[in-house]
Amino acid sequence: MPDFSATEVTRRRFMTRVGQGVLAANAAGTLLPRAHAQLRVPDPPGKKLGWAVVGLGSLAINQILPAFATCEKSRVVAFVSGHPDKAHKLALRYGVDPKNIYNYHNYDTIRDNPEVDVIYIVLPNGMHAEYTVRGHQAGKHVLCEKPMANNPAECQQMIDAARKADRKLMIAYRCRYEPYNQEAIRIARSGEMGPTQMILADTGFKISDPSVWRLHKQLAGGGSMMDIGIYALNASRYLTGEEPTELHAMIYSTPGDPRFQEVEEHVTFQLRFPSGTLANCSSSYGYFHQSHFRVMGTEARLVMDPATWYSGLHMYKEQGNTIETMDLPVVDHFAAEMDHMSDCVMQNKQPLTPGEEGLRDITIIQAIYRAAESREAVKL
Amino acid sequence: MPDFSATEVTRRRFMTRVGQGVLAANAAGTLLPRAHAQLRVPDPPGKKLGWAVVGLGSLAINQILPAFATCEKSRVVAFVSGHPDKAHKLALRYGVDPKNIYNYHNYDTIRDNPEVDVIYIVLPNGMHAEYTVRGHQAGKHVLCEKPMANNPAECQQMIDAARKADRKLMIAYRCRYEPYNQEAIRIARSGEMGPTQMILADTGFKISDPSVWRLHKQLAGGGSMMDIGIYALNASRYLTGEEPTELHAMIYSTPGDPRFQEVEEHVTFQLRFPSGTLANCSSSYGYFHQSHFRVMGTEARLVMDPATWYSGLHMYKEQGNTIETMDLPVVDHFAAEMDHMSDCVMQNKQPLTPGEEGLRDITIIQAIYRAAESREAVKL
Repeated sequence: MPDFSATEVTRRRFMTRVGQGVLAANAAGTLLPRAHAQLRVPDPPGKKLGWAVVGLGSLAINQILPAFATCEKSRVVAFVSGHPDKAHKLALRYGVDPKNIYNYHNYDTIRDNPEVDVIYIVLPNGMHAEYTVRGHQAGKHVLCEKPMANNPAECQQMIDAARKADRKLMIAYRCRYEPYNQEAIRIARSGEMGPTQMILADTGFKISDPSVWRLHKQLAGGGSMMDIGIYALNASRYLTGEEPTELHAMIYSTPGDPRFQEVEEHVTFQLRFPSGTLANCSSSYGYFHQSHFRVMGTEARLVMDPATWYSGLHMYKEQGNTIETMDLPVVDHFAAEMDHMSDCVMQNKQPLTPGEEGLRDITIIQAIYRAAESREAVKL
Repeated sequence: MPDFSATEVTRRRFMTRVGQGVLAANAAGTLLPRAHAQLRVPDPPGKKLGWAVVGLGSLAINQILPAFATCEKSRVVAFVSGHPDKAHKLALRYGVDPKNIYNYHNYDTIRDNPEVDVIYIVLPNGMHAEYTVRGHQAGKHVLCEKPMANNPAECQQMIDAARKADRKLMIAYRCRYEPYNQEAIRIARSGEMGPTQMILADTGFKISDPSVWRLHKQLAGGGSMMDIGIYALNASRYLTGEEPTELHAMIYSTPGDPRFQEVEEHVTFQLRFPSGTLANCSSSYGYFHQSHFRVMGTEARLVMDPATWYSGLHMYKEQGNTIETMDLPVVDHFAAEMDHMSDCVMQNKQPLTPGEEGLRDITIIQAIYRAAESREAVKL
């Protein structure tokens, strides 16, 4: 083992590259075809599209609704909820007209509401496909939370519905819309650390309440891998700009633990990419919270910790004997992704993370489950 | 994903537990049988055993020989080298009697030198078995560098030779003899972070010179896994105190790279332990240097980075919203391990890391190579 000398720590301020990052290629490094141009009058400067939020759980209440305050192109105009009391209280707080409160029975009548341009699906995973398809059938554009759906077939139904309705479908991979992960993508793919040799990505948290929908197979589609491991998987793909060709996985769930009767607790998975880069990743509902990415180049490493939290992201590059901490602009991830979606609708552009991007992750997650079950590598 | 609030950083000084750690159980958590008591006069207090260093490469010159200055129970009295000029220069510097300089031909006559109690094998891996066996046949105790040998059969020959000669055999797992890793073992096994859910261990460096013996199969036995990945493997075992029952692995070596014509470059491997703990590890000769361990408990995480370097180790525990950095006594790892060996000889005790410990790692490494080749899980 070489003897490495003490490391010098420096800090410098980086220029923002927010817009540049958002306009980059998709995770696979390929440019996706634009939907055919629609004949429409250009939107006036300063116009905000109207959004309906479907599902008023903690993510919607604590993150998404407050984020509209910083949106430049998006405003909340409608709710879809099974809890009218909650919906009315929130409507009062966010200035939503009570006539624009829908429930799951009259949801389809949202087609008759010209105020709603975009629907944001914030329901349990197992409901994503149905409510996305119904949203498209109502003629609306849809932003759907990750993971896209319970399985690839549902994802394909969503993609098909969007195509048939000629409406946009975007998956809410918020990390693609915030500066730290965007800069990490730029650095990792630029070659400035030498070719990327390995991606190490670990994401998880300890889930406590056995009654939450995330622990029920039908609603969640799976366990930690679907909910939090997907961040490590998606990052391995966007940091390399490649698609994995082979994977291994191991799963362990504590026997008898009431939280893990239906879905898995821990997953470790390894991905092989065409360039030779390997990714070594973990996902957990049982360990202390973690969100840690490392991009290992031949000449340097990029470390992100936390890499994916809603705020407080931290990133540094270690090269030679120098540690360079990066202070990037702090943005509201949800506002950034919603405005990207609004912009795509207004400009008739393909979102950076369209339905096809969500489908890829779900297809790989299914392969991870098969690999863990079979104890063999799965080729993709 | 939960929203985690800002983390408070504190620092406190820890009491040393050096001796306690050294006297702990071996990696498997089992106590090894003592060799039968030898009839001998107890050594006087302050006595130092005489050591012969076999192989005067960079590890011996830069780390091991200087370490004798801080040893309390060990002194260097002999060299075995194929380079007489180098040996004589070093003999002058370290006060070694020129008559105690051996070469590889007259090595066996060391049996007639009563000044030599212990032989330290610092040769290329492929020579460990032969020179250890010959050392035991010369009636000496042997400390052998890691990895123990090229394959399990050679390891077994070494164990058998030690038993036959009734002499000690220890493998130089220096991390077991220094306070940071010892404290990590105590914390990980104490349950104070909750049960260990996962071990994440990544070790590697970029090897530059294609001519070094580490890149030649016959001398090295394998590539990065044998040399540096063994730290991650050994740590997964000593941090859990368990033996893995199943593993997966992937290997990638850059095609056409002159460094990797005979041995592998990158390895990722995953281990399953009986308690359910999973370990996700990597090893590399191609990425920027790295020595990073994380023990993921349900309530906290322990992070070591660097975890295994000769000096400058850094360790902290993150629990709740607190980061506790640990300032432990800094010791010379090589002096600590050599004194442990001398102590075991003087007290007729089994070393903490005997030949059986080295054999376990080599057996698992062979299984890692088989798993990577077969693309299937290997049961142990």
